[in-house]
Amino acid sequence: MKIIVSLGGSVLAPRDSERVGAHATVIEGLAEEGHTVGAVVGGGTVARKYIHTARELGANEIELDQLGVDTTRLNARLLIAALSERAATRPARDYETAGAALRRGEIAVMGGVTPGQTTDAVSAALAEYVNADLLVYATSVPGVFDADPDENPDAQRFDRLSAGELVDVIADIEMTAGSSAPVDLLAAKIIERSGVRTVVLDGTDPDRIGHVVNTGEHDGTDIVP
Amino acid sequence: MKIIVSLGGSVLAPRDSERVGAHATVIEGLAEEGHTVGAVVGGGTVARKYIHTARELGANEIELDQLGVDTTRLNARLLIAALSERAATRPARDYETAGAALRRGEIAVMGGVTPGQTTDAVSAALAEYVNADLLVYATSVPGVFDADPDENPDAQRFDRLSAGELVDVIADIEMTAGSSAPVDLLAAKIIERSGVRTVVLDGTDPDRIGHVVNTGEHDGTDIVP
Amino acid sequence: MKIIVSLGGSVLAPRDSERVGAHATVIEGLAEEGHTVGAVVGGGTVARKYIHTARELGANEIELDQLGVDTTRLNARLLIAALSERAATRPARDYETAGAALRRGEIAVMGGVTPGQTTDAVSAALAEYVNADLLVYATSVPGVFDADPDENPDAQRFDRLSAGELVDVIADIEMTAGSSAPVDLLAAKIIERSGVRTVVLDGTDPDRIGHVVNTGEHDGTDIVP
Amino acid sequence: MKIIVSLGGSVLAPRDSERVGAHATVIEGLAEEGHTVGAVVGGGTVARKYIHTARELGANEIELDQLGVDTTRLNARLLIAALSERAATRPARDYETAGAALRRGEIAVMGGVTPGQTTDAVSAALAEYVNADLLVYATSVPGVFDADPDENPDAQRFDRLSAGELVDVIADIEMTAGSSAPVDLLAAKIIERSGVRTVVLDGTDPDRIGHVVNTGEHDGTDIVP
Amino acid sequence: MKIIVSLGGSVLAPRDSERVGAHATVIEGLAEEGHTVGAVVGGGTVARKYIHTARELGANEIELDQLGVDTTRLNARLLIAALSERAATRPARDYETAGAALRRGEIAVMGGVTPGQTTDAVSAALAEYVNADLLVYATSVPGVFDADPDENPDAQRFDRLSAGELVDVIADIEMTAGSSAPVDLLAAKIIERSGVRTVVLDGTDPDRIGHVVNTGEHDGTDIVP
Amino acid sequence: MKIIVSLGGSVLAPRDSERVGAHATVIEGLAEEGHTVGAVVGGGTVARKYIHTARELGANEIELDQLGVDTTRLNARLLIAALSERAATRPARDYETAGAALRRGEIAVMGGVTPGQTTDAVSAALAEYVNADLLVYATSVPGVFDADPDENPDAQRFDRLSAGELVDVIADIEMTAGSSAPVDLLAAKIIERSGVRTVVLDGTDPDRIGHVVNTGEHDGTDIVP
Repeated sequence: MKIIVSLGGSVLAPRDSERVGAHATVIEGLAEEGHTVGAVVGGGTVARKYIHTARELGANEIELDQLGVDTTRLNARLLIAALSERAATRPARDYETAGAALRRGEIAVMGGVTPGQTTDAVSAALAEYVNADLLVYATSVPGVFDADPDENPDAQRFDRLSAGELVDVIADIEMTAGSSAPVDLLAAKIIERSGVRTVVLDGTDPDRIGHVVNTGEHDGTDIVP
Repeated sequence: MKIIVSLGGSVLAPRDSERVGAHATVIEGLAEEGHTVGAVVGGGTVARKYIHTARELGANEIELDQLGVDTTRLNARLLIAALSERAATRPARDYETAGAALRRGEIAVMGGVTPGQTTDAVSAALAEYVNADLLVYATSVPGVFDADPDENPDAQRFDRLSAGELVDVIADIEMTAGSSAPVDLLAAKIIERSGVRTVVLDGTDPDRIGHVVNTGEHDGTDIVP
Repeated sequence: MKIIVSLGGSVLAPRDSERVGAHATVIEGLAEEGHTVGAVVGGGTVARKYIHTARELGANEIELDQLGVDTTRLNARLLIAALSERAATRPARDYETAGAALRRGEIAVMGGVTPGQTTDAVSAALAEYVNADLLVYATSVPGVFDADPDENPDAQRFDRLSAGELVDVIADIEMTAGSSAPVDLLAAKIIERSGVRTVVLDGTDPDRIGHVVNTGEHDGTDIVP
Repeated sequence: MKIIVSLGGSVLAPRDSERVGAHATVIEGLAEEGHTVGAVVGGGTVARKYIHTARELGANEIELDQLGVDTTRLNARLLIAALSERAATRPARDYETAGAALRRGEIAVMGGVTPGQTTDAVSAALAEYVNADLLVYATSVPGVFDADPDENPDAQRFDRLSAGELVDVIADIEMTAGSSAPVDLLAAKIIERSGVRTVVLDGTDPDRIGHVVNTGEHDGTDIVP
Repeated sequence: MKIIVSLGGSVLAPRDSERVGAHATVIEGLAEEGHTVGAVVGGGTVARKYIHTARELGANEIELDQLGVDTTRLNARLLIAALSERAATRPARDYETAGAALRRGEIAVMGGVTPGQTTDAVSAALAEYVNADLLVYATSVPGVFDADPDENPDAQRFDRLSAGELVDVIADIEMTAGSSAPVDLLAAKIIERSGVRTVVLDGTDPDRIGHVVNTGEHDGTDIVP
Repeated sequence: MKIIVSLGGSVLAPRDSERVGAHATVIEGLAEEGHTVGAVVGGGTVARKYIHTARELGANEIELDQLGVDTTRLNARLLIAALSERAATRPARDYETAGAALRRGEIAVMGGVTPGQTTDAVSAALAEYVNADLLVYATSVPGVFDADPDENPDAQRFDRLSAGELVDVIADIEMTAGSSAPVDLLAAKIIERSGVRTVVLDGTDPDRIGHVVNTGEHDGTDIVP
């Protein structure tokens, strides 16, 4: 099976070696079982801090995005340091380099690619590029909700959405000021056009990733083509 | 004044040297008058043909996007060949290289940057990155309409839209199957967050670009921050 | 057997997915049979159109060459899109990258390298660099003639030439204004010094390439060391 | 005057926009006064945290160094975001790129270069490469001491050292387990061979940097050729 | 005036600092007088020695060419070290980088570009690319002769040749085993198509280069368009 | 076993194809026996000559270092030309590229990385990065001595040193003007921190390298963790 795992920066938790190590173990395990595995790592709190400082200094949004991209690559390198020799030695900066690593049987690791694109979208694009069988978003919220669960205690999690419904749900959430979706709109659109099966789940426990690959079961949201 | 001009690939018309030359003349003229000018060039019919062939061959959308990006760079190089020594000698592949050229007083020329991002979005991002005073979309339709004018003869052109309204209009158009907006949603969102004044106009006559810079007047749509 | 296939841009025919697909099938087939295969793709009509426009705009020959090189890489990417995962994910830009791909068992695909060098010469240089057993020029004319067959109906095809004779024949053709040789002089000289067996044949039917590899038979011109 | 400023990562303080802004203001001010200015930024606490996590994960020292290098470049980008258009748009990755920016009158900003070399050494090497008139180490300790002042309250600051004496002092400090010198041995040796006048001072107050350039006065340690 | 100087590796003489310095002085002098100057440096004896060793080791010709290209860049860097801050800080690897440096008023320095192309051809291509007014080949023989003067004491120097005649003369020389022309055939063809005025002269005395620029007079061969 | 071989430039002897070939044979032999082998090549006499000339021309030490780095890469390419297809096709410019080649089972070859770092240090860093089992310095002196054997006939070779002792010995030698150590201080420190077993031996006879790998025996100095 060909799997792309999207690890939010908060989920990876760069200051928590145990968490990073646990994610590495799960990814290694999947590779050992014969799966082809790529990982895309987000920026998390480190990115947010740099962006906060730079915004106060008057940086424009593209500069902020670039700081974010650089931080995702730093996080990607941290994950690589935790992986075995099975992994590529440096973060891939584009889809073709990542795809080449996967074709050679390596574990490919990416961060962001360019300003104006989140690692959500990069994950979906990499999954589309390599014709993945499964895309797993390991996020800090346990699925896709009809509202931001941090803002609204009555928010309901969707167990299952078509990719088209996902686009609509995300578009609605993005319209609501202050809300944040677990996957952004560009990512949702790429998922829709690619038809890659996608699962959004709580990534704070890395074992859930291995579990969904091996059993197809999870407590998150299933996006079906 | 700092100006980013977005030239659709169809507008540039790679097989029509007169048209390419006329665009180069307008851009050169603006630079000579003391403006700082960057141009972003689209893919047009050449890109569409490559994408059509590759899709028939079973390429995925990211591969198609990459063919598109490569074609925009080819078109960008053609524009550079038509410009004087005032221009950078090769297409910039990221915002920092383009921005550095503009800081040095060169005419910067870009094509696309990466799959998943059109040159519409690249234009908006470059305008945001360099804090442009004006962003001009020279497109094959003379402004933003409430529907696709090629599909609907009653489509009305907006003379003026706020950036927020632009986002809503484009989101609506993109929902309608088969319709195409003159500027895509990601671009509209970047325009909204950057607050750069933007004009969408008919780019088949390059002189309109010089005209709007010098007089502020045009027959297209004004997007005001 | 280690084989380099030189596909003229007109032979590849970027707007004809069937032709591109047929070439990809032949190359894949050779790789599946255990051969090591590299392909070098030319610019064809797309390159000619860009060069024509740029020349009218006053571009110098090096700029024209560069437009040609970029187009060959676009064509190379199209071929890659048509190939399976056996192929490298992006066109190689130099001999060492292409050679490394071949050493790893991948199908390497190149376009041009630099102004002042055609893809004819790149093909011969790649064949020399990897010590190929066979170099096949799949061109739009069915071999090497004693004159340009498009200009002169009495032109005779050579069945067999030594590499030294090839150099003389090509040098003569290049002296004749308006004539074009199926392989240029720099390529011929590289073939001569490398001693790689070379076949020039009609590439409009891709199966001829597989046929010559497997049987040694063809209707073109054999260049023997 | 040609000045290289080495800003320790702790001194720059990525989470404190006021401090970063104050450093940017001083550097801009020097450039406005007609000085040629380059800045080299260290890794600070962010680097230390990544390195700590990675070490727990079993990364080797070269991997840790690389994480450090990446963080210095992130910090360098933050400083660039705080600078005006006078600055190069991206961190230089080698001395030649930084030197080229300085020759063009831009403010050059670097982070680290490669594992096995601190930004202390990079600063000294850049100063040597561009034949700087002054190298300022803005550090978290106010000069060179005969012992680590954090460990030993009786440590005495040197007001003035020859470059040869600096090498001896640093070599002694590095021999003492747990001690850290404000400038490392490789840097000291490069300072010695280059003969660039160097000042080590307390960089928590950025104005001290401007002060030493304009008056030659400071409360730190003077390294004289 | 825009001038490209082609310095043979033997003419530059990497082990003779006086000669290298004298060449740098002449180039600097031309730049100071307001000329735009680019230099292309050959491989000389160092290249020949590496190539000789590698050939004995069984390297193929492309590998030998690559060793040659690398050596020319080493020689180019040596020339840069001898030039003032007016020069670009590193050898350009393609025409666009060199052209950009010249547009900014820097002295551009190149070595070779790729296997299969000598620095003779690179010089002609750079001259064509930047539309140079004059191309000077400073070689170890004082002009173009009707035979190799080292082989044939009766060889006559041409005072003046049309570019077309140059191509014929060089083609003849290259046919003669063991003979070497001061400029190779590819270079001659580029000179012919570009129409750049070209002088081939004895480069062992660097002052001859300054002399021909300032007076138009020389003892070598004039190639007129 | 994973082995890094550091070949001094004088030991490789670029003008002596027999010596280069003998080294290639030994390295190939080790790879054939199943070992993972990387080689780092120094600059030797060619580097010294370029540096000598450039110093006379007033180049600064960073420029001299860069000439040295470039020469080591030239030497590395020569070694690659002598190796079989088992080797990477070009010298690696950083540890991650070299490490990736080793992970794929290729023979990786490096020269220097950046000014301020010798190939001694690069060898130690590469050994640390890939967690090598053995690092062999094949130098022009047969081990580590208590003084420079070229200067002092009574110099005694150490048969065995701890890594900490090595640091002290090298630090002492470097203090003595005019003396040169077989391994520099930065390399010694990296060896100490990495704990990689290291042997310094006479590299003029390449067979000694194979001998120490296969038997553990040698006439040089053993550095034990």
